[in-house]
Amino acid sequence: MEIQVLRRLEEKNKADADQIRALLNQHNVKCFNIMGSPGCGKTALLEHVLPPLQQRYRCAVLEGDLYTTQDAERIAGMGTTVIQLETQGSCHLDANLVMRGMQELNLDQLDIVFIENVGNLVCPANFDLGEHHRITVVSVTEGHDKPSKYPALFTKADIVLITKTDLLEHTNFDIHRAKESIRKFNDHAEIVETSIRSAPPAALVAFVLSIVD
Amino acid sequence: MEIQVLRRLEEKNKADADQIRALLNQHNVKCFNIMGSPGCGKTALLEHVLPPLQQRYRCAVLEGDLYTTQDAERIAGMGTTVIQLETQGSCHLDANLVMRGMQELNLDQLDIVFIENVGNLVCPANFDLGEHHRITVVSVTEGHDKPSKYPALFTKADIVLITKTDLLEHTNFDIHRAKESIRKFNDHAEIVETSIRSAPPAALVAFVLSIVD
Repeated sequence: MEIQVLRRLEEKNKADADQIRALLNQHNVKCFNIMGSPGCGKTALLEHVLPPLQQRYRCAVLEGDLYTTQDAERIAGMGTTVIQLETQGSCHLDANLVMRGMQELNLDQLDIVFIENVGNLVCPANFDLGEHHRITVVSVTEGHDKPSKYPALFTKADIVLITKTDLLEHTNFDIHRAKESIRKFNDHAEIVETSIRSAPPAALVAFVLSIVD
Repeated sequence: MEIQVLRRLEEKNKADADQIRALLNQHNVKCFNIMGSPGCGKTALLEHVLPPLQQRYRCAVLEGDLYTTQDAERIAGMGTTVIQLETQGSCHLDANLVMRGMQELNLDQLDIVFIENVGNLVCPANFDLGEHHRITVVSVTEGHDKPSKYPALFTKADIVLITKTDLLEHTNFDIHRAKESIRKFNDHAEIVETSIRSAPPAALVAFVLSIVD
């Protein structure tokens, strides 16, 4: 009986997600869902890719968080339109909450919407949010075993960013093994090493532009 | 209707957890539930606290993981009895699965059971596993905003370990702010800074001994 309820919720989420995608397509807006552990660098990546993207495209961010508006404030501080999606303790965004966020945006005046999911390597993978592409982030300080231990988030990613590579020499993270693990579940995603401390994440900007241009 | 189902599950989990605690008390076994993000250092902490504890006490580990036995193999490699609890993709352990693990252990021959939860800062907080004490782990590479963003895991902790302090100088982690945030939700937990790269986690060993001795 519990399984039946889960199935109903999943079907409802899928229907909501398809509705979001249709709405976005109608307005010619591309949507990216950014997922990864707490502290892997999702907000920092946004802070670095928004300025170059905003030179040519109109961007907005839906900022998922359990309770606080800390990340939303960081994005709003850059002059980007941001809607806070507060999950009230739930560990992932769902399409219903994202749809309410989309309805607050003026989609006619936008080209790109980023969704920053709740920091979590597990549950967000199971919830289609109506995005066009999935960006998965994993930092070297988390360990190279994380893709094999939490495969779902890597399976459907279109690009995987391995972040904080400036800390590589202080960890035992093996980039080669991490990439091999990711390739076992995903043969198409671009896998990019990045450190926003040493350089802006050019590969992520290029990836977004390759979709939007 | 969905809320009713959730309530039923929570009540069932609580009943299972109480049953586990009764079973442990009957055998005079103390149980610790270790929680934190993927890669925060839960398994590494266990690898460092087990040898000194095992000099005086008989320990076992219930190792929660989505699919793989990587962490369980690390612990078993130390000669510690370890039972793998595979959640099959679920993002937290529940008391039902933990009870099945406890039944595999010979509790008459044990003093301490550690439960290493699935790497996740969110969901494990809501599931009582029948433990006596909760150990929450957060690494400096995750950022000092994590306690305020994910309060539930810190609220009920009996000890909070701030790990990877050897990387402090390479991050903008503010120990003072992190501790202040934790104190807002929790006025009793011991808060400990630790780096297993520079020293064994003596405070965690002392904490466990203060309960068991």
